[in-house]
Amino acid sequence: MKKTGLNELRKDPLLGRWIAVLSESLPPSEYNGENSREPAKEDSCMLCAGRESETPHEIMRTPGSSPADPSKKWTTRVIANFDPVFMVEGDLGRRGEGMYDKMNSIGANEIIIESPHHAVEPEDIGFEQMIHVVETYRARMADLEKDTRLRYTLIYKNHGRSAGALYGHPLSQLVSTPVIPKRVKEELDNAKRYFSYKERCIFCDIMREEMRIEKRVIIESRHYIAFCPYASKFPFETWILPKRHNCAFQDIRPEEVEDFALILSSVLKKLRSLFPGLAYNYFIHSAPNRITRKDHWHTLGDDYHWHLEIMPRFLRTTGFEWGSGLYILPTSPEHAAKFLREV
Amino acid sequence: MKKTGLNELRKDPLLGRWIAVLSESLPPSEYNGENSREPAKEDSCMLCAGRESETPHEIMRTPGSSPADPSKKWTTRVIANFDPVFMVEGDLGRRGEGMYDKMNSIGANEIIIESPHHAVEPEDIGFEQMIHVVETYRARMADLEKDTRLRYTLIYKNHGRSAGALYGHPLSQLVSTPVIPKRVKEELDNAKRYFSYKERCIFCDIMREEMRIEKRVIIESRHYIAFCPYASKFPFETWILPKRHNCAFQDIRPEEVEDFALILSSVLKKLRSLFPGLAYNYFIHSAPNRITRKDHWHTLGDDYHWHLEIMPRFLRTTGFEWGSGLYILPTSPEHAAKFLREV
Repeated sequence: MKKTGLNELRKDPLLGRWIAVLSESLPPSEYNGENSREPAKEDSCMLCAGRESETPHEIMRTPGSSPADPSKKWTTRVIANFDPVFMVEGDLGRRGEGMYDKMNSIGANEIIIESPHHAVEPEDIGFEQMIHVVETYRARMADLEKDTRLRYTLIYKNHGRSAGALYGHPLSQLVSTPVIPKRVKEELDNAKRYFSYKERCIFCDIMREEMRIEKRVIIESRHYIAFCPYASKFPFETWILPKRHNCAFQDIRPEEVEDFALILSSVLKKLRSLFPGLAYNYFIHSAPNRITRKDHWHTLGDDYHWHLEIMPRFLRTTGFEWGSGLYILPTSPEHAAKFLREV
Repeated sequence: MKKTGLNELRKDPLLGRWIAVLSESLPPSEYNGENSREPAKEDSCMLCAGRESETPHEIMRTPGSSPADPSKKWTTRVIANFDPVFMVEGDLGRRGEGMYDKMNSIGANEIIIESPHHAVEPEDIGFEQMIHVVETYRARMADLEKDTRLRYTLIYKNHGRSAGALYGHPLSQLVSTPVIPKRVKEELDNAKRYFSYKERCIFCDIMREEMRIEKRVIIESRHYIAFCPYASKFPFETWILPKRHNCAFQDIRPEEVEDFALILSSVLKKLRSLFPGLAYNYFIHSAPNRITRKDHWHTLGDDYHWHLEIMPRFLRTTGFEWGSGLYILPTSPEHAAKFLREV
């Protein structure tokens, strides 16, 4: 069921955070009872090979090895979201409402289908498939950057129900927004501040420090390091940082695409062998769209550095974390990295 | 089991967030399997009346109506946390570690037992009990403000297992930290910025705007308004804001204590009658400790305004919210307030 009303983006006047308010409000009855929609089983999954005509609009596909065999016709497909929050058509309509600020919820919501097969993750079916997935990420980000209304593209993955996954099929999601999301803005602002003070990229400094100390590093490849950050928010949180200073994910080179597929696969496999059935999220943080990178916080892109963050979802957040923004880490990053290294 | 090692506070170099890292790291096996510790049943609950000698150190108690009757000996009790993250004893020990910053995890962790009875919430057993709870909050905040090592005291409540509650007994929790937590620091900074620009308190402005518009107001009492914020992060999120401009919760007057007990009870009852079995968190945001209120962001306390935020926990957060800090609201605050008004 597609929503057709106009969703809006509202700005929290206190924290500067944008909130997308859906035009068709759910009544209280929708929240009662367990939120227990089961992920689609394989025989009812529209994302599987052979059911292409039943999905929303296809945006791109990576051709497979055999056009005649339905399960090899494509390796990845990108489709419009079933239930988009951000709408592609329309103008931004920035306006006030009393003392508050709002705008139209313009943007893109896409589903990146990571495999034609239902219950398998791309990292389990071979290196080639993972390269296709990473290359699809890159292609979508490069394409969406051309829309001058859009300021940011976030690619993220929800794996497992407690991480918010709603489908049984392997997929990532993409959202492009007309605003720079708060969490990214904070990183940009703080990286810029660090750069002004030190005249060095904070991510390059973190990478050098972690390679010097070694004890929080999980693996190092030719182009990347994977490590547990010094002040991780969640136990076994892992970051993958490219060694080459580069603010934009879509600018990665072909050999970096391959190497990224390799290190991401290894880290996910390590996490999952330590924690069978692990629920996790990951997301890519990259610089805002080039068109806006000229603005006050992104003169040159020198002060930002793209990376991927993986957040295992073991713990429930409580009033303490929500009220304070301070997190309690029951396993140190040094121990977490050691366990992950030794898998 | 009390932890005796030295927990540490580490600063995230990118986001400025402090993380408390526990000295005794949990191994991966502790995270596998459902996180299924059941809340204590009444017959094994140490927080119930009559088992006072089995709890950690008692910090304060509000006398009850009959010292002879164990269930009426006290109305609220405050005890040290079973498993404290922040330690009362010691110095701050601020120091560097390579490029990073850390300090000792000094502070207070307290449990505010809201009733001598096990499976009942204070708002259900009469107005008097809720007044005792609010008065206990006030007394603890006023007392902890005297410790000059501590910069902030957060009082919060986890109700229901998916909101992080671990005990079946009604309680709130209190954490005092030697740093101003990130979420509070953002509110202080932004409220200060608004004040500099407008020469008015942002919370006073929000209150006036909400009273003018009316459609997001749930109830208004003599001293407070309860409303669903314009850019709520979660559906049915509710704030209670005092009408009198006052930055510090511990400065509320006796008549404001009573009225706060009344409005908080009403709002919780409304939420729970709309959503039976609702899991929620609430927390009080108040100015940092007075001793530090002289610093650059709190010259006069004119630019902050204490309040309570209630967050119903219906939705699972996904990689989108964690990666962007942008939230999707499936029920508008206007609709949510209408449903709550009409209960």
